[in-house]
Amino acid sequence: MKNIFLAGALSIATTASPLMANEGMWQPSQLPEIEDQLEDAGLEIDPDNLSKLTEFPMGAVISLGGCTASFLSPKGLVATNHHCAYGSIQFNSTAENNLLEKGFLADSFEEELPAAPGSRVYVTTELTNVTDAINDGLTSEMSGMERYKAVEKKEKSLVAGCEAEDGFRCNVYSFHGGLEYFLIKQMEIRDVRLVYAPSSHIGKYGGDIDNWMWPRHTGDFSFYRAYVGKDGMPADFSEDNVPYEPEHYLKVNANGVSKGDFVMVTGYPGRTNRYRTSAEVKNQFEWRYPTFRNVLHKYISIIEENAPEGSDARVKYASTLAGLNNAEKNWGSMIESYGKGDLLERRQQLEAELEAWLSDNPEMNEKHGDALAELDALIKENLKDQAVEMKKWGMNRDTLTATASRLYRLAIESEKPDAEREPGYQERDITRIKEGLKRMNRRWDATVEKALYKHFVAEYAGLPTEDRMQSYDTFMGIDSTFNVDKFNARVDWMFAETKLTDEQARLNWIGRSVDDFKQSQDPFIQLAVAVYDEKHQKELDDKEQSGKFKKLRPQYMAAIIDFYKSKNMPVYADANSTLRVTYGNVKGYSPEDGMFATPFTTLEGLAAKHTGEAPFNSPLEQLDLIKDKKYGDYEDPALNSVQVNFLSTVDTTGGNSGSPTMNAEAQFVGLLFDGVYESIIGDWDYNPDLNRSIHVSSAYMLWVMEHVDGARNLIEEMDVVR
Amino acid sequence: MKNIFLAGALSIATTASPLMANEGMWQPSQLPEIEDQLEDAGLEIDPDNLSKLTEFPMGAVISLGGCTASFLSPKGLVATNHHCAYGSIQFNSTAENNLLEKGFLADSFEEELPAAPGSRVYVTTELTNVTDAINDGLTSEMSGMERYKAVEKKEKSLVAGCEAEDGFRCNVYSFHGGLEYFLIKQMEIRDVRLVYAPSSHIGKYGGDIDNWMWPRHTGDFSFYRAYVGKDGMPADFSEDNVPYEPEHYLKVNANGVSKGDFVMVTGYPGRTNRYRTSAEVKNQFEWRYPTFRNVLHKYISIIEENAPEGSDARVKYASTLAGLNNAEKNWGSMIESYGKGDLLERRQQLEAELEAWLSDNPEMNEKHGDALAELDALIKENLKDQAVEMKKWGMNRDTLTATASRLYRLAIESEKPDAEREPGYQERDITRIKEGLKRMNRRWDATVEKALYKHFVAEYAGLPTEDRMQSYDTFMGIDSTFNVDKFNARVDWMFAETKLTDEQARLNWIGRSVDDFKQSQDPFIQLAVAVYDEKHQKELDDKEQSGKFKKLRPQYMAAIIDFYKSKNMPVYADANSTLRVTYGNVKGYSPEDGMFATPFTTLEGLAAKHTGEAPFNSPLEQLDLIKDKKYGDYEDPALNSVQVNFLSTVDTTGGNSGSPTMNAEAQFVGLLFDGVYESIIGDWDYNPDLNRSIHVSSAYMLWVMEHVDGARNLIEEMDVVR
Repeated sequence: MKNIFLAGALSIATTASPLMANEGMWQPSQLPEIEDQLEDAGLEIDPDNLSKLTEFPMGAVISLGGCTASFLSPKGLVATNHHCAYGSIQFNSTAENNLLEKGFLADSFEEELPAAPGSRVYVTTELTNVTDAINDGLTSEMSGMERYKAVEKKEKSLVAGCEAEDGFRCNVYSFHGGLEYFLIKQMEIRDVRLVYAPSSHIGKYGGDIDNWMWPRHTGDFSFYRAYVGKDGMPADFSEDNVPYEPEHYLKVNANGVSKGDFVMVTGYPGRTNRYRTSAEVKNQFEWRYPTFRNVLHKYISIIEENAPEGSDARVKYASTLAGLNNAEKNWGSMIESYGKGDLLERRQQLEAELEAWLSDNPEMNEKHGDALAELDALIKENLKDQAVEMKKWGMNRDTLTATASRLYRLAIESEKPDAEREPGYQERDITRIKEGLKRMNRRWDATVEKALYKHFVAEYAGLPTEDRMQSYDTFMGIDSTFNVDKFNARVDWMFAETKLTDEQARLNWIGRSVDDFKQSQDPFIQLAVAVYDEKHQKELDDKEQSGKFKKLRPQYMAAIIDFYKSKNMPVYADANSTLRVTYGNVKGYSPEDGMFATPFTTLEGLAAKHTGEAPFNSPLEQLDLIKDKKYGDYEDPALNSVQVNFLSTVDTTGGNSGSPTMNAEAQFVGLLFDGVYESIIGDWDYNPDLNRSIHVSSAYMLWVMEHVDGARNLIEEMDVVR
Repeated sequence: MKNIFLAGALSIATTASPLMANEGMWQPSQLPEIEDQLEDAGLEIDPDNLSKLTEFPMGAVISLGGCTASFLSPKGLVATNHHCAYGSIQFNSTAENNLLEKGFLADSFEEELPAAPGSRVYVTTELTNVTDAINDGLTSEMSGMERYKAVEKKEKSLVAGCEAEDGFRCNVYSFHGGLEYFLIKQMEIRDVRLVYAPSSHIGKYGGDIDNWMWPRHTGDFSFYRAYVGKDGMPADFSEDNVPYEPEHYLKVNANGVSKGDFVMVTGYPGRTNRYRTSAEVKNQFEWRYPTFRNVLHKYISIIEENAPEGSDARVKYASTLAGLNNAEKNWGSMIESYGKGDLLERRQQLEAELEAWLSDNPEMNEKHGDALAELDALIKENLKDQAVEMKKWGMNRDTLTATASRLYRLAIESEKPDAEREPGYQERDITRIKEGLKRMNRRWDATVEKALYKHFVAEYAGLPTEDRMQSYDTFMGIDSTFNVDKFNARVDWMFAETKLTDEQARLNWIGRSVDDFKQSQDPFIQLAVAVYDEKHQKELDDKEQSGKFKKLRPQYMAAIIDFYKSKNMPVYADANSTLRVTYGNVKGYSPEDGMFATPFTTLEGLAAKHTGEAPFNSPLEQLDLIKDKKYGDYEDPALNSVQVNFLSTVDTTGGNSGSPTMNAEAQFVGLLFDGVYESIIGDWDYNPDLNRSIHVSSAYMLWVMEHVDGARNLIEEMDVVR
């Protein structure tokens, strides 16, 4: 379950239908509300326990920023997906000592390796409802921009107050589009070390071919360890640091799960769109996904052409291409599922039912009557420019363009007091900005970037003058007739002249003044300066719109929630990267008429996929063990083998990667790492017949650790139960 | 289940392992021997009944030559696969009235259309064991050629005696490689008419994409009617003919089958290789299939290049390409299954067990001791030239070359008394030869054929001189250095000069003398004359080998049969296009770890596959009926839908297409039409876990007939039971 490449940035949209069995990414505080459902599904511990973030088991669940993880020992041992630790494994690899290939196991704490720069472990310590604080002073007469600014100011002030304590990171999260706000405080552990990763031939077995697919045989797990200073507080990497001792950690069940078992997944799902209106759904699936998919298609083909198979450039773009191909597959699946299903019809029906309910309930009609109409009018307004914006996408995405813009913006923002700066350009963001600037060259090649840039500007140049950026056209010498040769020559010159391709040169721009930028001869810096005002105006317009959404989306959600309440149905909020709990059962599904996906895969199935060529190149030791049926203590008698991956009905999305999967007693039984192809549309619509998450079983994890990799030290460190 | 394109011609061959559940294509006379197994599987009628070819139900099972069919009414109504009647539907189609597209239903007998030229219905009337007659006079001292000639002579004389009665066709079939011979007499009905065919969008739904695949939703059925003269005997087409009144026909069960039901399939499976030695298996799967597959690959790409998509030529080659692609898929599956499985190891084990058993049993050792060694030595000898022969394959396959050779051979054979002629060139064969000559132009294009010919001769020319054909080289002007341009110019000239591209010109060569051929200026006729002696010598050498096999294969099979007898296991013979019975149960299977193919598909699954583009372009009437759940009397309560296709464990192969599938009471419950991808290797090896046949359910047939096509007249004509 890779995060979808840039899907967030341009994402519009779903409305919820009456709640389906096992649907829901619940805020822990909601769990007592759905106690009966949880018990029906098989939960054995008290749901109240699950509602307390800092107690067991929730206290053991942590965020890595983008991925989820959990503590599995009193010494800060962290389990997450191999694909979540991939960057750290890669960071510690060299051509001579390729850990991705060989895997890595630290036999002692001393041998543990620093994770990739920027790696973090976030331990949630406090969650405060700040809705009243945010709303205080907001009026319905405010313009969109006034509202936007007011909310932003409150958020920044809450965050600043919270982060006054060293070693913590705080964020305000809006729920239901702004109906509620929570301030979440997390201890930010920044000395994170790589402890153990199986070979990619286990951890990434099946690779991109099997991504989103069942049957699956991926050992998608790795281990980190969190370190803190001797005072127990977050500290930069130091040999003097000590393992963090979490208040809670999970026991590991050595047997995995059985068919029908209750399972729950706690984690940080990134973003869903379950409550978008039918207009948004229609636009997204009938225009945006298909159109954007074509753009991606072109983007991919330009990279493939200019970075041929086997070239150094191809290596640099491997990860970008994987992301792009993932997005393409993802959107393809959604378009396919939408075509087969009745999502739009159900959303339209929901809206009709809502309207009928409102007209039957004068009091509610008084309260919510215009919510949908007002929101839909704003949506319509908001989508008006989408075709033009799509034409500018590839051009604005150019790395040098974006880097220069970011640096210049940083200079502008740095002239203001910290609290007044644009979020993302405050003091608290400097480290991340630097890390981003450092990463660039590993994923950048001039030939590829020039080809992309030339193609996408030519696309842009096809827009009517009034839809283009005047300042950009002037700077680049584009007039009514686009002279390709002249333009391309200018691009070649800019790429040749710029110093931004050098890491140190990029870093040197941090802390420089706006005037320094204005006097720079670097063509990309000059471009950033030239277009700033016009781009900034666009940003202000977007914020005006965004401010309006902050008013109308909560109004609509309030109507939806009252409507559901009238049916006695609790409502969960769309995913927003905050901690959620989803529950369900171990269960197969029918991906198509005449076929049934059974809920487990086995070691023998893994061996049957082996071709000797990546991504199906199982280590020979593993194949020998399978051939000899050396299942050790991990045999599942129902399967006559060791379970490798399993399916469940839990409701998850990107960001849930690495989430611990727990059984009815809150024991660790595996890691969530993907969803099946048919569940990709789950970000918009939960279908109980098709929505299945994919987990790597704790049985397979332990079997690999004990029999393939000899990681007995870690097994001993954990609390393994059977 | 399309017959594999020319697989027979070059096929070499598998040894049997201990019999697997439901394995076996049994001769009807063997069924009483396996009575217990049949009853265990669920058969409710007396197995003795099944052993009598001219009684119920066997008397209702007929051959179409290459496909199987059955009588479903007292008026000679014949059910077979749509793909078996395809040629007749095509034959009656025009651009304006495309029956493949629209389907066809005769509302009355008068509206029935003549089937394609050469269409036949064969009703088996007699089966005689002629082993003694064939063997009489054979000695172990005979050379291969002497044995070959002696057997051929006996066979021809038996056939001639049998065919003395007008309207019958007789053939001698060898079983177990010549251990037994049977003379089979069949009434040859030659006025066959097309009664009903659903649209190809039903009958060929899924097309080549779904060929060999599950899940499947193909309505692969059509109806013929057999007509005879007023005297009840076969006659040429005439309006005075009357429907044939078969002695037996099958009742049709309107409900299809249920999971686990007993089913049996009676039909004419073409060819299997279940008893080949390990040496033959190894050669076939490790050399022949992979090598030949590469040749086909090239063959296909030349056609595709020279007959571009959308061209008239492509239309002519559509069927050839479909056949080639089918063979490629077929061989690909076999290579894949072989790689995953342990066929070779099991064959080797069988041979080791046989040897051990022989050395433990002096009497048996005396009788069979050298059988395997002698056979293997001959196999080795026989395979010696296979690489050279493969290089000549494409060249010899050229249509004009083959046509000229066949015509010249006919002239040579015609100078002999009929009984002494080469089989295939006797009086009884003339009609078929003519029909073949008439068909050529529909599937022939000069550009394509020249490109193929030039490519494959260039391949041939790469052989060392001693492996090439001297007479051919002399005629074509090929010497030690192959001059491509000169050669190609000669080919162009030959194609331009020959008259064989004209149908009438080809037909005119029938009845001409050898001298006429020798004096012809037609370059392809000249070529045929020039190479005749050398080719004929090769044929004689092949017959010498074949004669040796006629001695050694039965010796080996006798050893195998005695070995199995010692374990109380009956042995079925390899398929040889004679009537066989296979039984099994309705059952799904696991094509791979984590997936299970359930045994039924439904109308809703059919609709879900609809894309609007062939081969997934379901008629809209059908889609509407499905949407409205108009299941009529055909709903399967277990599925909440109408069953479309189903899986069973019966053991079938090409030639079984169109075979009636019968339930425990011998009622018609569907038509066998394909096997799943994993069962393609079934021609060599029955795997009870993976070998599944695919049937179209009688419930779907009747539903389409009643609700989609309104074929109530046919439903009334049949004896439908529920």
